[in-house]
Amino acid sequence: MAVFTVLGAGMMGSALCVPLCDRGHEVRLVGTHLDGAIIEQMRSRHHHPKLRYDLPTSIAAFEHSELENAMEGCDVLVLGVSSAGIAWAAERIAPFASRGLPLFGITKGLDFDGQQLRVLPDVVRDAAGWPNEPAAVAGPCIAGELARRVPSCVVLTGRDGAMLERIAGLIGTDYYHLQRSTDVVGAEACAALKNAYAMGVAFGAGLHAKAGGQAGSVAMHNYESAVFAQALWEMARVVQAMGGSIESVVGLAGAGDLDVTNNGGRTGRFGRFLGMGLSLADAIEAMEGATLECLGILAVMRAATRDMQRQGKLPELPLLEHMAAVALDGAPVQMPFERFFGSGA
Amino acid sequence: MAVFTVLGAGMMGSALCVPLCDRGHEVRLVGTHLDGAIIEQMRSRHHHPKLRYDLPTSIAAFEHSELENAMEGCDVLVLGVSSAGIAWAAERIAPFASRGLPLFGITKGLDFDGQQLRVLPDVVRDAAGWPNEPAAVAGPCIAGELARRVPSCVVLTGRDGAMLERIAGLIGTDYYHLQRSTDVVGAEACAALKNAYAMGVAFGAGLHAKAGGQAGSVAMHNYESAVFAQALWEMARVVQAMGGSIESVVGLAGAGDLDVTNNGGRTGRFGRFLGMGLSLADAIEAMEGATLECLGILAVMRAATRDMQRQGKLPELPLLEHMAAVALDGAPVQMPFERFFGSGA
Repeated sequence: MAVFTVLGAGMMGSALCVPLCDRGHEVRLVGTHLDGAIIEQMRSRHHHPKLRYDLPTSIAAFEHSELENAMEGCDVLVLGVSSAGIAWAAERIAPFASRGLPLFGITKGLDFDGQQLRVLPDVVRDAAGWPNEPAAVAGPCIAGELARRVPSCVVLTGRDGAMLERIAGLIGTDYYHLQRSTDVVGAEACAALKNAYAMGVAFGAGLHAKAGGQAGSVAMHNYESAVFAQALWEMARVVQAMGGSIESVVGLAGAGDLDVTNNGGRTGRFGRFLGMGLSLADAIEAMEGATLECLGILAVMRAATRDMQRQGKLPELPLLEHMAAVALDGAPVQMPFERFFGSGA
Repeated sequence: MAVFTVLGAGMMGSALCVPLCDRGHEVRLVGTHLDGAIIEQMRSRHHHPKLRYDLPTSIAAFEHSELENAMEGCDVLVLGVSSAGIAWAAERIAPFASRGLPLFGITKGLDFDGQQLRVLPDVVRDAAGWPNEPAAVAGPCIAGELARRVPSCVVLTGRDGAMLERIAGLIGTDYYHLQRSTDVVGAEACAALKNAYAMGVAFGAGLHAKAGGQAGSVAMHNYESAVFAQALWEMARVVQAMGGSIESVVGLAGAGDLDVTNNGGRTGRFGRFLGMGLSLADAIEAMEGATLECLGILAVMRAATRDMQRQGKLPELPLLEHMAAVALDGAPVQMPFERFFGSGA
């Protein structure tokens, strides 16, 4: 039995508490300043309003002002915030850095400081002055399914292999399987990029709906799967340019997570709206305030890839370029298939 | 303008005639002995009963006994038969080998002669005594969509790069995009394997339906995407053991075709029946006589991988092994997630 403190009570941070409880750990879930309503419902009736699901009664819920209490006797610290909350979270955990605790995160994103494209475990380590290598979870995992104990395979990635074994040994269950990978750059880049690419795959479903088509076997699956393949091709180019391995693209973090995001993610709905021809503003409004991670990562990648391409480190990425034009500038969807796959298509 | 003779009037061979006609070629579609009803309807009303679609009136339809006429002045020969018809087709085209025509096929499969796992372009070349390197089309392309001119990207693969350029230059259109690849082994192995793996991905949807679940975002997408990623991981291992490149797995032939088969293919329906708990016999019956390419490729791969594993050329492939047990032996679906990804999961 170990004491886990999870900072961030959003869908994924909270869902992760389920396997932790099932393994018999003491679990403390700490809300951010945006999680007030969640923490209140967790305290009053062990219910998570965003997951729309009752969570184990053994989870102790804390306000963010109570972080110090929640960290008392903590054995493993988990960062469950969204990418927008990473800087805030790093600042909050910095006072506990000297304890040398194992730390792992579930946040998906990339950071570009104008010079370097960096994965979030490195950003957190440096910002919080963490003395060891943080780990991170990537791969196909819809939070609502994990909370309901649907069989899930994820990647636990980090540079310290022994730390990965230790964490995986503590949190794996018969429905939550953890592949270990030291390809942090590959796994984390894929985890972030898939949020953008899932939007592009969904353009096809939107175009099909716009044309009056019904879902079914004669739809625009060829279009969608061509974009799916180009997405992985471009992810492979970015990962390799950053020093990661193509194995992560073929695996859970890349292909697996892109697949699950297409099937169950918000980003796909947003891409469908854009494919249907909704204006950018209307598509954003139709999402009713849902977090659109794809916009953030597209902005980061547009800046970073221009830089890397100027330096000759990266080939043309026509899909990414087109998605940025659509989702950031409001350009119409017009897939540049003829420029796909290094132009041999 | 060139003269194309397409041997095999099934869905894909016939759908391919659409871009050929759009490019202004003379197109001759030759049925096999199984295609009598199709050729009759093509002649009487230019309708393809399996595609349920009218095809261009300029297509000339031939009975297989008229192959010699259809080959008169032929510039490019296309093999449009299913994998079961490859030996028959090779025998039929052998008399024309000396003409040295460009040849490409759309058949997906692998051949194992007890010694070596071979891709079909090589099998055809050797069986027909073809004097040049046949090319082949792989990648995500549902025939009914191609016939309806849905944008599609495929791989044209072959060992003779100049031949690929020549063929691609003749058949590409603004909706039919051809990436060129000389990784014949990688592209063709992926094309064949995806028929088996799509079945495994669909087990999840069947299990979900069996549990009374509705399609939707809280389903068993985590399960499906974990299998999807493992499928690509195993395809990468087979491709590399055969001397192909992982780039084909990341691209159209691997990830793209697996994706499209999950979304629109027969194999997915079969896998769903098995996941729902139907017996093997009942699942086959429920498919109402549809060709189940997955059974053939699973039988081939079970024999071939045992051999390659004995020789230390291939690691354990737990998903393939399990799918073969389910679909060939009637074992119940019980996904071996704990053995996924080289056991680190």
